[in-house]
Amino acid sequence: MRVELMQNLLGDNDTVAAENHQLFNANRVLALDFMGSPGSGKTSILERVVRALDDLRIQVIEGDVATANDARRIEEAGAEAFQINTGGACHLNAMMIRQAISQLDLTATDVLLIENVGNLVCPAAFHLGVHHRLIVSSVPEGDDKPEKYPVAFRGCQGVILNKTDLLDNVDFDTERFWSVCRQLQPEAAQFETSCQSGVGIARLCEWLRKQRSAPTTS
Amino acid sequence: MRVELMQNLLGDNDTVAAENHQLFNANRVLALDFMGSPGSGKTSILERVVRALDDLRIQVIEGDVATANDARRIEEAGAEAFQINTGGACHLNAMMIRQAISQLDLTATDVLLIENVGNLVCPAAFHLGVHHRLIVSSVPEGDDKPEKYPVAFRGCQGVILNKTDLLDNVDFDTERFWSVCRQLQPEAAQFETSCQSGVGIARLCEWLRKQRSAPTTS
Repeated sequence: MRVELMQNLLGDNDTVAAENHQLFNANRVLALDFMGSPGSGKTSILERVVRALDDLRIQVIEGDVATANDARRIEEAGAEAFQINTGGACHLNAMMIRQAISQLDLTATDVLLIENVGNLVCPAAFHLGVHHRLIVSSVPEGDDKPEKYPVAFRGCQGVILNKTDLLDNVDFDTERFWSVCRQLQPEAAQFETSCQSGVGIARLCEWLRKQRSAPTTS
Repeated sequence: MRVELMQNLLGDNDTVAAENHQLFNANRVLALDFMGSPGSGKTSILERVVRALDDLRIQVIEGDVATANDARRIEEAGAEAFQINTGGACHLNAMMIRQAISQLDLTATDVLLIENVGNLVCPAAFHLGVHHRLIVSSVPEGDDKPEKYPVAFRGCQGVILNKTDLLDNVDFDTERFWSVCRQLQPEAAQFETSCQSGVGIARLCEWLRKQRSAPTTS
């Protein structure tokens, strides 16, 4: 009974996610979902990306349990930001995104960046209708995160290892991290970034530009 | 309808949590639930505590989505560890703890340390029947975590700010962090720790010893 209800809920979510996906394609919007632990640096990466891709029309949807802090940071970086506060909820779902995009002008948007609630577990179960899901995992969290949170890493199209400036300060085996990532999802793109120095942001932005040329494929 | 089911689920959980609590008290076991983001350092703190409190009979329950890595680390530190793998589930619940403690000898246990799944959102909604809930939040996650995850911080009896050895390497306003913690939960004990240097572990252990003298009060 409980399982049935869960399936129905996810079923509803998947239907709306598919509709969101069609809306993105109809408007030629590349949509991405950024997932990761609290404090992995998702907002800092989005700030950097927004600044670097200033020739594109970018909209950002920020998902948080509470506060509009992240939306404010994004607007200071130069993009429009729509803050979703989930109240207690631990993830964004397709219906929340549907509501948000009904208030955005998709015809005047090239790229929609969605920052999910800081959580390595629950967001992975709820597709939002995006083209790509990216995980942000940071060096101080430890090199064992792909092993310990396999569902999220298995379901993504890219992994961003962030805060590489701290590699000298903590015990982190980069090869172990990437090796498990590859086992879980051999197709995922790999990025190493530092939002302190800016290292790796240009490569990430280059990849994002490439995805724009074929946003309808996934 | 959905809300009702959620209430029933939480209702069941609270009933079992109350029974767990009675079991802990009947056996004079001090039980604690450690919650925090992935990679905040929960396991490292438990390793340190287990080593420091080697005159007490400590059992540890490790909650993870996948792997038995953390249980192995705890056993190397010298305590018995029971690993719960939740499969996909994003939090421990009282029923999982009930099952685990049915396989432990509570009569030969002084302290039960429970490490919850790495997640700052969902575990806060599920009481396990412990005496105290402690949040582990680490410096590289950022000083805004109490604001952004208020439910967890409001419902705890202690906050451990971990990885203070990284304070020189990242932008972190300690006063902002503690000020919001105090607003959310003025009664919570405050600790600053580094599992690299061991700073702060003795004070945490001293506090744990004190709680043992009155484990039935909460």
